[in-house]
Amino acid sequence: MPYKINHKPWRDVSAAMLEHRKQTIAAVEPAVPGVADSLPLNVTSIPRQLLPSEVIEITESPSELLISRLSTGKLSSTAVVTAFLQRAGLASKLTNCVAELLPERALTRAKYLDDYLSKHRQTIGPLHGLPISVKEHVEMAGLDINAGFAAWVGNVATSDALILKLLWNAGCVFYARTTEPQALMHLETDNAIYGTTTNPFNTNLTAGGSSGGEGALLGLRGSCLGIGTDIGGSIRSPAANNGVFGLRPTSYRLPLSGLAATMLGAEHIVPVIGPLSTSLEGINLFMKALIDQQPWLYEPSLVPLPWKDTTEDSLLRKDGTGNRKLRIGVLSDDGVVKPHPPILRGIQTLVSALQSHPDIEIIPFPPYKHAEAWRIISSLYFADGGAEEKAAINASGEAILPLTEFILTQNPNVKELSVHEVWKLTQEREGYKAAYTRHWNSDQMVDVILTPAGPGCAPPHDCARYWGYTSQWNLLDYPSLVFPTGLQAGLEDKVEEGYKPRNEEDGYNYELYKPETYVDAPISLQLVGRRYEDEKVVEALRMISEIAGLPLKN
Amino acid sequence: MPYKINHKPWRDVSAAMLEHRKQTIAAVEPAVPGVADSLPLNVTSIPRQLLPSEVIEITESPSELLISRLSTGKLSSTAVVTAFLQRAGLASKLTNCVAELLPERALTRAKYLDDYLSKHRQTIGPLHGLPISVKEHVEMAGLDINAGFAAWVGNVATSDALILKLLWNAGCVFYARTTEPQALMHLETDNAIYGTTTNPFNTNLTAGGSSGGEGALLGLRGSCLGIGTDIGGSIRSPAANNGVFGLRPTSYRLPLSGLAATMLGAEHIVPVIGPLSTSLEGINLFMKALIDQQPWLYEPSLVPLPWKDTTEDSLLRKDGTGNRKLRIGVLSDDGVVKPHPPILRGIQTLVSALQSHPDIEIIPFPPYKHAEAWRIISSLYFADGGAEEKAAINASGEAILPLTEFILTQNPNVKELSVHEVWKLTQEREGYKAAYTRHWNSDQMVDVILTPAGPGCAPPHDCARYWGYTSQWNLLDYPSLVFPTGLQAGLEDKVEEGYKPRNEEDGYNYELYKPETYVDAPISLQLVGRRYEDEKVVEALRMISEIAGLPLKN
Repeated sequence: MPYKINHKPWRDVSAAMLEHRKQTIAAVEPAVPGVADSLPLNVTSIPRQLLPSEVIEITESPSELLISRLSTGKLSSTAVVTAFLQRAGLASKLTNCVAELLPERALTRAKYLDDYLSKHRQTIGPLHGLPISVKEHVEMAGLDINAGFAAWVGNVATSDALILKLLWNAGCVFYARTTEPQALMHLETDNAIYGTTTNPFNTNLTAGGSSGGEGALLGLRGSCLGIGTDIGGSIRSPAANNGVFGLRPTSYRLPLSGLAATMLGAEHIVPVIGPLSTSLEGINLFMKALIDQQPWLYEPSLVPLPWKDTTEDSLLRKDGTGNRKLRIGVLSDDGVVKPHPPILRGIQTLVSALQSHPDIEIIPFPPYKHAEAWRIISSLYFADGGAEEKAAINASGEAILPLTEFILTQNPNVKELSVHEVWKLTQEREGYKAAYTRHWNSDQMVDVILTPAGPGCAPPHDCARYWGYTSQWNLLDYPSLVFPTGLQAGLEDKVEEGYKPRNEEDGYNYELYKPETYVDAPISLQLVGRRYEDEKVVEALRMISEIAGLPLKN
Repeated sequence: MPYKINHKPWRDVSAAMLEHRKQTIAAVEPAVPGVADSLPLNVTSIPRQLLPSEVIEITESPSELLISRLSTGKLSSTAVVTAFLQRAGLASKLTNCVAELLPERALTRAKYLDDYLSKHRQTIGPLHGLPISVKEHVEMAGLDINAGFAAWVGNVATSDALILKLLWNAGCVFYARTTEPQALMHLETDNAIYGTTTNPFNTNLTAGGSSGGEGALLGLRGSCLGIGTDIGGSIRSPAANNGVFGLRPTSYRLPLSGLAATMLGAEHIVPVIGPLSTSLEGINLFMKALIDQQPWLYEPSLVPLPWKDTTEDSLLRKDGTGNRKLRIGVLSDDGVVKPHPPILRGIQTLVSALQSHPDIEIIPFPPYKHAEAWRIISSLYFADGGAEEKAAINASGEAILPLTEFILTQNPNVKELSVHEVWKLTQEREGYKAAYTRHWNSDQMVDVILTPAGPGCAPPHDCARYWGYTSQWNLLDYPSLVFPTGLQAGLEDKVEEGYKPRNEEDGYNYELYKPETYVDAPISLQLVGRRYEDEKVVEALRMISEIAGLPLKN
């Protein structure tokens, strides 16, 4: 749809939207608890202090357990939705992660599902009764869409995005919409409408972005399963920063139609939509529920690849006795920006827990020109020179936020390209992908790559400037799955004294690290597979989790 | 690769290339027969008059029969390749369809394969010993590549295109390279290097294009299986015009890397590569031999969809007793340009042969805004305004040929686009595709569409101006398979007197039709499936052929 400009000052727009949000939270029954004016940096224990035990039990259950109980009627959808509405309202008070709650429509839907199950003795779909949180720019009929721009507020979606229609068919309940940053292009979440979303493990740190509202909400267990989008790390950065799972699927597997964004029609780098989840099986269920509905029959750009459920059939190699074998390439450092000590500890600890197992083979995976990959992808992100973003920002007078400046204005690769320049960069992109394919095909061919999800744990606000650990896999279009190790950063993760930075970005990242800044930040990692081997990545992580005994203990 | 310009007058380039071709044909042993100065319009019977019976028997066998005999050693690859070299040389003398023959490298390869089979008692791959003809711009190591531009002659491929490497692994022999038009963008084949390729059924008519060398060569049985490329009809037009099979596969199934062409890096409309074959099973074998090698492991843009061999497992619906059911939508007329009488007779005759069968259901399939599809695709073909084509043409002083003028200069949709204009057209393209998907999903959902392959049989030279019957399926990226009905145009196909043309294109096409012009031209049709249902289209045509008893008799 074409987006209309509201021609209002951004402060007025923001005030109205904040008031609207307040009302939607206030409409939740039982009432969402208030929070103290002064809070600790780590707010993750507060929900347990303020919410009833049955709400805690429901909201701390993973999707697969909830679905099992919902499908048998042991839990009603009304009870589950009520619990998540309460905890999401509280999470928003703690981290500013929600754009609006939807208590009325969610409870109407939950009641319908409960009545249906009671009457028909069967579920309406595989996700019957499960509440799902949704990033704001995924269009929901009758509700505002603004893509993080104050000037776009007042656009109202006329129908649900296709992914929501399919999830609806599967039995979901939509109860919360979550925040996103200006222009949707930060690994951070702040905009002129809602302000900054903070990290529940340490509110001085960012929740990540651009699906940072989802990240913080799931980190606080105000949701067990949510929808994000990712063109450079926007699912995985918030998943990593908040200690939850997040999958960037291969492109053209899940339907994208019905997203509010700039640059509609741009195909140079394809965005994807995908799940954030408090459990690995939630990721699997989400993908399966959608792809089982053959979305390619409705969105013609999608590829008709069924979702292979690896809980039933393994995709890994077997040895002579039928044991599954997993060869993991470890890419600890991309050669451009060295990860912070907690991340390197996370990789080392996980590798130590895996490497003596007879079915696991650990191999170093050397990086291949990751700086070149960033040059290409960052040249293709804004092929119009960022004109659409600047127009949307300027229309309301809202400030260009620091990380928008970073990616859009200070980024030397952004300029208005001619068609020939786009073609040349596209050839470079395809050439790089072909070279990386050969790199992977080299004699030590691995099943998956284990690598950081970022150059550190969640950084302080406005400091998430290095995208390489996630954008690398967008350029290559490899499925990439972020997961929590269970470890958290702490004072024991000392600065590497005397380190000589390799380049400006590396120096920036090195300077950013002080152990005391990052206390309690989740240490997350990323597992990457070949293009369209999404299911294999999920299975590999399941095997890794079992063998290493994830979550690890600090 | 970047193409260098030879800075020679086009006439000198042409003379040298024609002499080179002559020498490669002269090198064939036994010698290729000469042809009379004066030939009938229909030259298809001449090979039988001039070639030995064993050559005729081999060259008139379909691929599947040759492969069966080659794999058991009943036929040697040397004998098969020798036969096809002779007949291809003759075909070129009759229709100017060959760019060069490759007798020395082909016979070396054939001998290697014969020795291998003799020594190891097994084949090296599923196409062991089979000769395959290749359109010129598919790069072959050590040989010239020019994409139909005189100025590009002198560029030499440093390696084989990926598709050739895979066919080589499968056991093929490359023995002939075939002609293509200036800029590769005509439904006709003529360029400044080789001149015009003619239609063997009626040399006043075009062989079609841009894979017209392949079309004429297969039409004369100088090849049984060849490689073409298609972005608007370039496999299907020559297949249709010459009475052979041609498949435009869905994009990203077969590898494209290693094609010489302008506009490398352009993704607005994706070209595809695919087979032309004298038999339907040749199409199936070609696709299976390539896709079984998992080309997505080498070319990262490809989709990892296995080729489902429908000779083993049906993809069609079954009734209660296990009988396959096929629902065919018949789209006789796209609503823009009414097909000529022979084409309409072809559809009617085939439908009559099918419609009383209990397993076939015939339904009218209404067109959906095909003129709009042409506006979108023809706006996206040359997003740089045709700058690269014009530069390549002008560099040698060669004339801009009439059909280049038509598509590039007179086409009102061609202009240099800005990035925003490309994005807008891309949205229109995706919007059209989504609308056509809904059209297909309407309550009469069909398995395949039966439709013309063009607005008439092969037209006279320089008259193939309406692309809509093929480009429609490029825009939608639907697999589309052209096949001969067995019927041929004749004097009984009368002009529809008093017809009032709908528009300029329709008037042009109507005026083009005189029964005497088209005598003997093959009547071919096209079967179209949903995106990525290539195998289902092949199976549907196999079922149609069996039930209707194809080829039909005039």
